[in-house]
Amino acid sequence: MDWGAIDRYAKSLIKEAGHRIRVSFAGKIQIETKADANDLVTDIDRDIEQFFISRIRRDFPGHRILGEEGFGDDVRSGEGVVWILDPIDGTMNFIHQQRNFAISLGIYADGIGMLGYIYDVMADDFYHAYRGEGAYRNDERLPMLAPVPVEKAIIGVNASWVTPNRYIEHEAIGQLVSDCRGTRSYGSAAIELAHVAAGRLDAYLSMRLAPWDVAGGSVIISEVGAVASNLRGEELDMISKDTFIAARPGLHQTVLDQYIRLKRT
Amino acid sequence: MDWGAIDRYAKSLIKEAGHRIRVSFAGKIQIETKADANDLVTDIDRDIEQFFISRIRRDFPGHRILGEEGFGDDVRSGEGVVWILDPIDGTMNFIHQQRNFAISLGIYADGIGMLGYIYDVMADDFYHAYRGEGAYRNDERLPMLAPVPVEKAIIGVNASWVTPNRYIEHEAIGQLVSDCRGTRSYGSAAIELAHVAAGRLDAYLSMRLAPWDVAGGSVIISEVGAVASNLRGEELDMISKDTFIAARPGLHQTVLDQYIRLKRT
Repeated sequence: MDWGAIDRYAKSLIKEAGHRIRVSFAGKIQIETKADANDLVTDIDRDIEQFFISRIRRDFPGHRILGEEGFGDDVRSGEGVVWILDPIDGTMNFIHQQRNFAISLGIYADGIGMLGYIYDVMADDFYHAYRGEGAYRNDERLPMLAPVPVEKAIIGVNASWVTPNRYIEHEAIGQLVSDCRGTRSYGSAAIELAHVAAGRLDAYLSMRLAPWDVAGGSVIISEVGAVASNLRGEELDMISKDTFIAARPGLHQTVLDQYIRLKRT
Repeated sequence: MDWGAIDRYAKSLIKEAGHRIRVSFAGKIQIETKADANDLVTDIDRDIEQFFISRIRRDFPGHRILGEEGFGDDVRSGEGVVWILDPIDGTMNFIHQQRNFAISLGIYADGIGMLGYIYDVMADDFYHAYRGEGAYRNDERLPMLAPVPVEKAIIGVNASWVTPNRYIEHEAIGQLVSDCRGTRSYGSAAIELAHVAAGRLDAYLSMRLAPWDVAGGSVIISEVGAVASNLRGEELDMISKDTFIAARPGLHQTVLDQYIRLKRT
């Protein structure tokens, strides 16, 4: 498998998709009503999905595509080469803000993440990683992450996980929110993982994410020494939805040990 | 008073300050350790404060400056012209992320907000407003905001206000978090107010903010029809620290009526 060639292809594909999104927005700068805005972004979302699927199927007919329900292939095992794709991660931001969304792609071989990409389209921030070759932001290599204690950590966690929910004991997460230096929430798992990779967030956690939300980011963060798992501390299978945490080394285990109490196992 | 001239001066001053910050970062791209990074940003912060103070005092000797403790004048009344300034709003982002911070400035005459500025330095997003003349992002006029119901609103609220705290009954805020469409937290009041002005957040609330955090943003959001007050619904005095909410028309009152239960009055 010529991973260098696949890497060059994937970068080019993602950048073209980002360009198409920006052109679509620019062509419709006069969005009169919220209803119009919703239609516009739904159209763009569908176009970009189709763009990715048609290109990947044409140029890599032996590969499979894992994406949101009804899009891509029915992938129930990690065998072979699988492109795990979210054409627009952060849909709510895409609709309401027309920014702070990202294209997220991980390319996995027999379940192993080989290539990872996160493209924050409107900020034009491109993150990529090639297994064992390091992670990059706009072609500058990202440094390895050092450990930080909880009390110096900035953690990506949405306020909704601090309210009563069926996944996790919210009081324990409230204690984490109190103990850490601060929390942020950006509304896109891919962008939060990019922030972890770049050292801007020290951890990110969520109670329910799909493989396509985190496949690209997981490859990227592991190249800078961060650790990703589900909230039971198990490796992600990249097939089913699951809980999620990514964090600097050390902090990952501390959060799991001291602050995570799952309601269902 | 020639407000047009003051407006041109303030814009130029803020842009020069932003340029100085970016140059300082660029000159130190090799930050080896976190401790070095802290020193660097503390130095930049102090330099930028001094830059603003020396220029405003030199060119507007009759005006007063209200900023963080120990910086600017001792302003106990809103009389005359007061420059209410936060040279770097979002200090934690400034230190940890070297982005997502803003220069915030409001210029008030006898307590009335005449001019407002928010400059997201690293994104190069400049918001300004001139009382009665509308609000602008990068010189494009921002449209007036229409009402939205809670269930369609994206609300800027930090997870820490959903944990037990001494200002507000956190269960009620938790209910707001559950009832709205989604929440975000960016770690800079100025940037969150810029998002409210641009329609990207429908409301933003915090339990404790200083006048310099919100003076610029309050002028800007009122020009697009949003409403700012403390959490008792009272007008902000721009002298003392207080609770804070800014929201689209209608949503402001709904949140106050249905979700805010203050512990101290």
